[in-house]
Amino acid sequence: MIVLGIDPGMAILGYGVVEQTGNSLKVIDYGVVNTPSGMNTSQRLTVIFEAVGELIEKYSPETVAVEELFFNKNVKTALTIGHARGVAILAAAIKDIEVYEYTPLQVKQAVVGYGRASKQQVQQMVRMLLNLKEIPKPDDAADALAVSICHIHSIALQKKLNMK
Amino acid sequence: MIVLGIDPGMAILGYGVVEQTGNSLKVIDYGVVNTPSGMNTSQRLTVIFEAVGELIEKYSPETVAVEELFFNKNVKTALTIGHARGVAILAAAIKDIEVYEYTPLQVKQAVVGYGRASKQQVQQMVRMLLNLKEIPKPDDAADALAVSICHIHSIALQKKLNMK
Repeated sequence: MIVLGIDPGMAILGYGVVEQTGNSLKVIDYGVVNTPSGMNTSQRLTVIFEAVGELIEKYSPETVAVEELFFNKNVKTALTIGHARGVAILAAAIKDIEVYEYTPLQVKQAVVGYGRASKQQVQQMVRMLLNLKEIPKPDDAADALAVSICHIHSIALQKKLNMK
Repeated sequence: MIVLGIDPGMAILGYGVVEQTGNSLKVIDYGVVNTPSGMNTSQRLTVIFEAVGELIEKYSPETVAVEELFFNKNVKTALTIGHARGVAILAAAIKDIEVYEYTPLQVKQAVVGYGRASKQQVQQMVRMLLNLKEIPKPDDAADALAVSICHIHSIALQKKLNMK
Protein backbone atom coordinates (compact mmCIF):
# COMPACT_ATOMS: atom_id res chain seq x y z
CA MET A 1 0.00 0.00 0.00
CA ILE A 2 1.31 3.44 -0.95
CA VAL A 3 0.05 6.48 0.97
CA LEU A 4 0.51 10.14 0.11
CA GLY A 5 0.46 12.18 3.30
CA ILE A 6 -0.19 15.90 3.12
CA ASP A 7 0.41 18.65 5.67
CA PRO A 8 -1.61 21.39 3.98
CA GLY A 9 -0.65 25.05 3.81
CA MET A 10 -0.75 27.84 1.26
CA ALA A 11 2.88 29.05 1.42
CA ILE A 12 4.32 25.59 2.21
CA LEU A 13 2.50 22.32 1.67
CA GLY A 14 4.38 19.27 2.94
CA TYR A 15 4.05 15.86 1.32
CA GLY A 16 5.37 12.43 2.19
CA VAL A 17 4.95 9.23 0.22
CA VAL A 18 5.28 6.02 2.25
CA GLU A 19 5.00 2.42 1.10
CA GLN A 20 3.97 -0.37 3.42
CA THR A 21 5.04 -3.92 2.59
CA GLY A 22 4.06 -6.43 5.25
CA ASN A 23 5.29 -4.92 8.51
CA SER A 24 7.89 -2.63 7.00
CA LEU A 25 7.57 0.99 5.97
CA LYS A 26 9.66 2.64 3.26
CA VAL A 27 9.95 6.27 2.24
CA ILE A 28 9.39 6.78 -1.43
CA ASP A 29 9.52 10.57 -1.56
CA TYR A 30 8.98 13.63 0.58
CA GLY A 31 9.29 17.36 0.21
CA VAL A 32 7.31 20.57 0.06
CA VAL A 33 5.38 22.61 -2.49
CA ASN A 34 6.24 26.29 -2.04
CA THR A 35 4.12 29.11 -3.40
CA PRO A 36 5.68 32.56 -2.93
CA SER A 37 3.51 35.21 -1.29
CA GLY A 38 3.99 37.40 -4.39
CA MET A 39 1.66 35.06 -6.29
CA ASN A 40 -2.06 35.75 -6.11
CA THR A 41 -4.53 33.22 -4.68
CA SER A 42 -5.48 31.90 -8.13
CA GLN A 43 -1.89 31.19 -9.07
CA ARG A 44 -1.04 29.62 -5.71
CA LEU A 45 -4.04 27.29 -5.78
CA THR A 46 -3.27 26.27 -9.35
CA VAL A 47 0.33 25.41 -8.39
CA ILE A 48 -0.84 23.34 -5.39
CA PHE A 49 -3.57 21.56 -7.37
CA GLU A 50 -1.17 20.66 -10.16
CA ALA A 51 1.64 19.63 -7.81
CA VAL A 52 -0.59 17.27 -5.82
CA GLY A 53 -2.03 15.93 -9.07
CA GLU A 54 1.51 15.21 -10.34
CA LEU A 55 2.46 13.40 -7.12
CA ILE A 56 -0.62 11.20 -7.52
CA GLU A 57 0.21 10.48 -11.17
CA LYS A 58 3.82 9.68 -10.28
CA TYR A 59 3.30 7.40 -7.29
CA SER A 60 -0.28 6.08 -7.72
CA PRO A 61 -1.06 6.11 -3.98
CA GLU A 62 -3.97 4.00 -2.81
CA THR A 63 -4.91 6.71 -0.34
CA VAL A 64 -4.28 10.38 0.35
CA ALA A 65 -4.11 11.23 4.07
CA VAL A 66 -4.51 14.90 4.99
CA GLU A 67 -3.78 16.52 8.33
CA GLU A 68 -6.56 18.53 9.92
CA LEU A 69 -5.96 21.97 11.30
CA PHE A 70 -4.87 22.85 14.80
CA PHE A 71 -7.92 24.74 16.02
CA ASN A 72 -5.85 27.20 17.96
CA LYS A 73 -5.01 28.99 14.73
CA ASN A 74 -6.81 32.23 13.95
CA VAL A 75 -9.71 32.60 11.56
CA LYS A 76 -7.71 34.24 8.74
CA THR A 77 -5.09 31.47 8.89
CA ALA A 78 -7.84 28.85 8.91
CA LEU A 79 -9.42 30.31 5.78
CA THR A 80 -6.07 30.37 3.95
CA ILE A 81 -5.15 26.83 4.98
CA GLY A 82 -8.69 25.82 4.02
CA HIS A 83 -8.09 27.04 0.45
CA ALA A 84 -4.93 24.93 0.10
CA ARG A 85 -6.45 21.96 1.87
CA GLY A 86 -9.61 22.02 -0.27
CA VAL A 87 -7.61 22.09 -3.47
CA ALA A 88 -5.31 19.26 -2.30
CA ILE A 89 -8.34 17.10 -1.41
CA LEU A 90 -9.95 17.92 -4.76
CA ALA A 91 -6.79 16.86 -6.63
CA ALA A 92 -7.20 13.40 -5.07
CA ALA A 93 -11.00 13.29 -5.28
CA ILE A 94 -11.21 13.93 -9.02
CA LYS A 95 -8.80 11.05 -9.59
CA ASP A 96 -11.04 8.81 -7.43
CA ILE A 97 -8.39 8.39 -4.73
CA GLU A 98 -9.79 7.89 -1.23
CA VAL A 99 -9.03 10.75 1.14
CA TYR A 100 -8.69 10.29 4.90
CA GLU A 101 -8.40 13.13 7.38
CA TYR A 102 -6.52 12.94 10.69
CA THR A 103 -6.29 15.44 13.52
CA PRO A 104 -2.87 16.30 14.98
CA LEU A 105 -3.94 14.32 18.06
CA GLN A 106 -4.65 11.22 15.97
CA VAL A 107 -1.31 11.60 14.19
CA LYS A 108 0.60 11.79 17.49
CA GLN A 109 -1.25 8.85 18.96
CA ALA A 110 -0.72 6.70 15.89
CA VAL A 111 2.97 7.60 15.43
CA VAL A 112 4.24 7.98 19.01
CA GLY A 113 1.42 6.24 20.90
CA TYR A 114 0.89 9.36 22.95
CA GLY A 115 -1.42 12.25 22.03
CA ARG A 116 0.60 14.90 23.82
CA ALA A 117 3.91 14.00 22.20
CA SER A 118 6.13 16.92 21.20
CA LYS A 119 6.92 17.81 17.59
CA GLN A 120 10.47 16.52 18.23
CA GLN A 121 9.20 13.16 19.51
CA VAL A 122 6.99 12.76 16.44
CA GLN A 123 9.90 13.59 14.14
CA GLN A 124 12.22 11.12 15.90
CA MET A 125 9.61 8.37 15.56
CA VAL A 126 9.15 9.20 11.88
CA ARG A 127 12.92 8.89 11.41
CA MET A 128 13.06 5.55 13.26
CA LEU A 129 9.95 4.01 11.68
CA LEU A 130 11.18 4.90 8.21
CA ASN A 131 14.81 3.84 8.90
CA LEU A 132 16.23 7.24 8.04
CA LYS A 133 19.60 8.52 9.27
CA GLU A 134 18.37 12.06 9.76
CA ILE A 135 15.03 13.66 10.57
CA PRO A 136 13.41 14.58 7.25
CA LYS A 137 13.52 18.30 6.54
CA PRO A 138 11.73 20.69 6.43
CA ASP A 139 9.22 20.17 9.26
CA ASP A 140 6.27 20.25 6.85
CA ALA A 141 7.65 17.23 5.00
CA ALA A 142 8.28 15.36 8.28
CA ASP A 143 4.71 16.18 9.35
CA ALA A 144 3.36 14.85 6.06
CA LEU A 145 5.32 11.60 6.50
CA ALA A 146 3.82 11.34 10.01
CA VAL A 147 0.32 11.63 8.50
CA SER A 148 1.11 8.81 6.06
CA ILE A 149 2.36 6.61 8.92
CA CYS A 150 -0.73 7.53 10.95
CA HIS A 151 -2.96 6.28 8.15
CA ILE A 152 -1.03 3.03 7.75
CA HIS A 153 -1.13 2.35 11.51
CA SER A 154 -4.83 3.23 11.71
CA ILE A 155 -5.73 0.84 8.91
CA ALA A 156 -3.61 -1.90 10.49
CA LEU A 157 -5.34 -1.36 13.83
CA GLN A 158 -8.77 -1.46 12.22
CA LYS A 159 -7.92 -4.75 10.51
CA LYS A 160 -6.83 -6.23 13.85
CA LEU A 161 -10.04 -5.05 15.51
CA ASN A 162 -12.16 -6.50 12.71
CA MET A 163 -10.42 -9.88 13.05
CA LYS A 164 -11.33 -10.23 16.69
CA MET B 1 -18.94 42.35 -19.56
CA ILE B 2 -20.29 39.22 -17.87
CA VAL B 3 -19.39 38.59 -14.21
CA LEU B 4 -19.92 35.42 -12.21
CA GLY B 5 -20.30 36.34 -8.53
CA ILE B 6 -19.84 33.69 -5.89
CA ASP B 7 -20.83 33.62 -2.22
CA PRO B 8 -18.77 30.61 -1.16
CA GLY B 9 -19.86 27.93 1.28
CA MET B 10 -19.63 24.17 1.55
CA ALA B 11 -23.30 23.27 2.15
CA ILE B 12 -24.65 26.14 0.01
CA LEU B 13 -22.63 28.10 -2.52
CA GLY B 14 -24.50 31.01 -4.06
CA TYR B 15 -23.84 32.19 -7.63
CA GLY B 16 -25.07 35.12 -9.65
CA VAL B 17 -24.29 35.90 -13.28
CA VAL B 18 -24.71 39.56 -14.28
CA GLU B 19 -24.14 41.21 -17.64
CA GLN B 20 -23.25 44.86 -17.97
CA THR B 21 -24.07 46.63 -21.23
CA GLY B 22 -23.29 50.35 -21.12
CA ASN B 23 -24.95 51.59 -17.95
CA SER B 24 -27.45 48.79 -17.59
CA LEU B 25 -27.20 45.58 -15.67
CA LYS B 26 -29.01 42.38 -16.52
CA VAL B 27 -29.37 39.13 -14.62
CA ILE B 28 -28.41 36.14 -16.67
CA ASP B 29 -28.69 33.44 -14.03
CA TYR B 30 -28.54 32.92 -10.30
CA GLY B 31 -28.96 30.09 -7.85
CA VAL B 32 -27.15 27.87 -5.43
CA VAL B 33 -25.05 24.73 -5.46
CA ASN B 34 -26.10 22.48 -2.59
CA THR B 35 -24.00 19.67 -1.22
CA PRO B 36 -25.76 17.57 1.41
CA SER B 37 -23.92 17.04 4.72
CA GLY B 38 -24.11 13.28 4.17
CA MET B 39 -21.50 13.64 1.41
CA ASN B 40 -17.88 13.47 2.45
CA THR B 41 -15.45 16.37 1.87
CA SER B 42 -14.05 14.84 -1.33
CA GLN B 43 -17.48 14.46 -2.89
CA ARG B 44 -18.63 17.91 -1.84
CA LEU B 45 -15.54 19.61 -3.23
CA THR B 46 -15.84 17.69 -6.49
CA VAL B 47 -19.48 18.79 -6.87
CA ILE B 48 -18.57 22.44 -6.20
CA PHE B 49 -15.55 22.37 -8.52
CA GLU B 50 -17.57 20.84 -11.36
CA ALA B 51 -20.57 23.11 -10.83
CA VAL B 52 -18.47 26.29 -10.93
CA GLY B 53 -16.61 24.93 -13.95
CA GLU B 54 -19.93 24.32 -15.73
CA LEU B 55 -21.17 27.85 -14.95
CA ILE B 56 -17.96 29.22 -16.48
CA GLU B 57 -18.34 27.04 -19.57
CA LYS B 58 -21.99 28.03 -19.96
CA TYR B 59 -21.71 31.80 -19.51
CA SER B 60 -18.05 32.57 -20.36
CA PRO B 61 -17.71 35.30 -17.72
CA GLU B 62 -14.85 37.74 -18.12
CA THR B 63 -14.33 37.72 -14.37
CA VAL B 64 -15.20 35.69 -11.32
CA ALA B 65 -15.82 37.78 -8.19
CA VAL B 66 -15.72 35.96 -4.87
CA GLU B 67 -16.89 37.23 -1.51
CA GLU B 68 -14.40 37.16 1.34
CA LEU B 69 -15.30 35.77 4.73
CA PHE B 70 -16.81 37.66 7.61
CA PHE B 71 -14.00 37.36 10.15
CA ASN B 72 -16.41 36.98 13.03
CA LYS B 73 -16.99 33.37 12.02
CA ASN B 74 -15.27 30.67 14.04
CA VAL B 75 -12.13 28.81 13.02
CA LYS B 76 -13.88 25.57 12.07
CA THR B 77 -16.35 27.44 9.86
CA ALA B 78 -13.50 29.39 8.29
CA LEU B 79 -11.65 26.19 7.39
CA THR B 80 -14.77 24.66 5.82
CA ILE B 81 -15.62 27.80 3.85
CA GLY B 82 -11.95 27.96 2.86
CA HIS B 83 -12.22 24.52 1.27
CA ALA B 84 -15.20 25.54 -0.87
CA ARG B 85 -13.73 28.95 -1.66
CA GLY B 86 -10.37 27.51 -2.68
CA VAL B 87 -12.01 25.04 -5.03
CA ALA B 88 -14.27 27.71 -6.56
CA ILE B 89 -11.28 30.00 -7.18
CA LEU B 90 -9.35 27.08 -8.66
CA ALA B 91 -12.21 26.29 -11.07
CA ALA B 92 -11.81 29.81 -12.49
CA ALA B 93 -8.00 29.94 -12.28
CA ILE B 94 -7.40 26.79 -14.32
CA LYS B 95 -9.62 28.24 -17.07
CA ASP B 96 -7.53 31.47 -16.99
CA ILE B 97 -10.45 33.56 -15.75
CA GLU B 98 -9.43 36.51 -13.58
CA VAL B 99 -10.59 36.24 -9.98
CA TYR B 100 -11.35 39.27 -7.80
CA GLU B 101 -12.04 39.10 -4.09
CA TYR B 102 -14.28 41.52 -2.20
CA THR B 103 -14.94 41.85 1.51
CA PRO B 104 -18.55 42.14 2.75
CA LEU B 105 -17.75 45.81 3.52
CA GLN B 106 -16.67 46.47 -0.07
CA VAL B 107 -19.81 44.74 -1.38
CA LYS B 108 -22.08 46.87 0.79
CA GLN B 109 -20.27 50.07 -0.14
CA ALA B 110 -20.35 49.29 -3.84
CA VAL B 111 -24.00 48.16 -3.93
CA VAL B 112 -25.68 50.41 -1.36
CA GLY B 113 -23.02 53.13 -1.02
CA TYR B 114 -22.89 52.52 2.70
CA GLY B 115 -20.61 49.97 4.45
CA ARG B 116 -22.96 49.34 7.35
CA ALA B 117 -26.00 48.61 5.20
CA SER B 118 -28.22 45.77 6.40
CA LYS B 119 -28.63 42.51 4.52
CA GLN B 120 -32.16 43.65 3.63
CA GLN B 121 -30.91 46.96 2.19
CA VAL B 122 -28.34 45.13 0.07
CA GLN B 123 -31.01 42.73 -1.22
CA GLN B 124 -33.40 45.59 -2.05
CA MET B 125 -30.65 47.37 -3.99
CA VAL B 126 -29.80 44.15 -5.86
CA ARG B 127 -33.48 43.83 -6.82
CA MET B 128 -33.66 47.45 -7.99
CA LEU B 129 -30.35 47.53 -9.85
CA LEU B 130 -31.22 44.33 -11.70
CA ASN B 131 -34.85 45.37 -12.39
CA LEU B 132 -36.30 42.35 -10.66
CA LYS B 133 -39.84 42.16 -9.28
CA GLU B 134 -38.82 40.15 -6.25
CA ILE B 135 -35.68 39.84 -4.16
CA PRO B 136 -33.75 36.87 -5.56
CA LYS B 137 -33.94 33.79 -3.35
CA PRO B 138 -32.26 32.18 -1.51
CA ASP B 139 -30.06 34.70 0.33
CA ASP B 140 -26.87 33.08 -0.91
CA ALA B 141 -27.89 33.72 -4.53
CA ALA B 142 -28.80 37.36 -3.72
CA ASP B 143 -25.42 37.75 -2.01
CA ALA B 144 -23.65 36.35 -5.05
CA LEU B 145 -25.49 38.80 -7.33
CA ALA B 146 -24.38 41.59 -4.97
CA VAL B 147 -20.76 40.50 -5.40
CA SER B 148 -21.13 40.62 -9.19
CA ILE B 149 -22.61 44.13 -8.98
CA CYS B 150 -19.81 45.14 -6.59
CA HIS B 151 -17.22 44.09 -9.15
CA ILE B 152 -18.95 45.92 -12.01
CA HIS B 153 -19.25 49.12 -9.94
CA SER B 154 -15.64 48.87 -8.74
CA ILE B 155 -14.33 48.52 -12.28
CA ALA B 156 -16.50 51.44 -13.44
CA LEU B 157 -15.18 53.58 -10.57
CA GLN B 158 -11.59 52.68 -11.36
CA LYS B 159 -12.10 53.65 -15.00
CA LYS B 160 -13.51 57.02 -13.94
CA LEU B 161 -10.58 57.61 -11.59
CA ASN B 162 -8.09 56.70 -14.32
CA MET B 163 -9.72 59.17 -16.73
CA LYS B 164 -9.20 62.13 -14.40
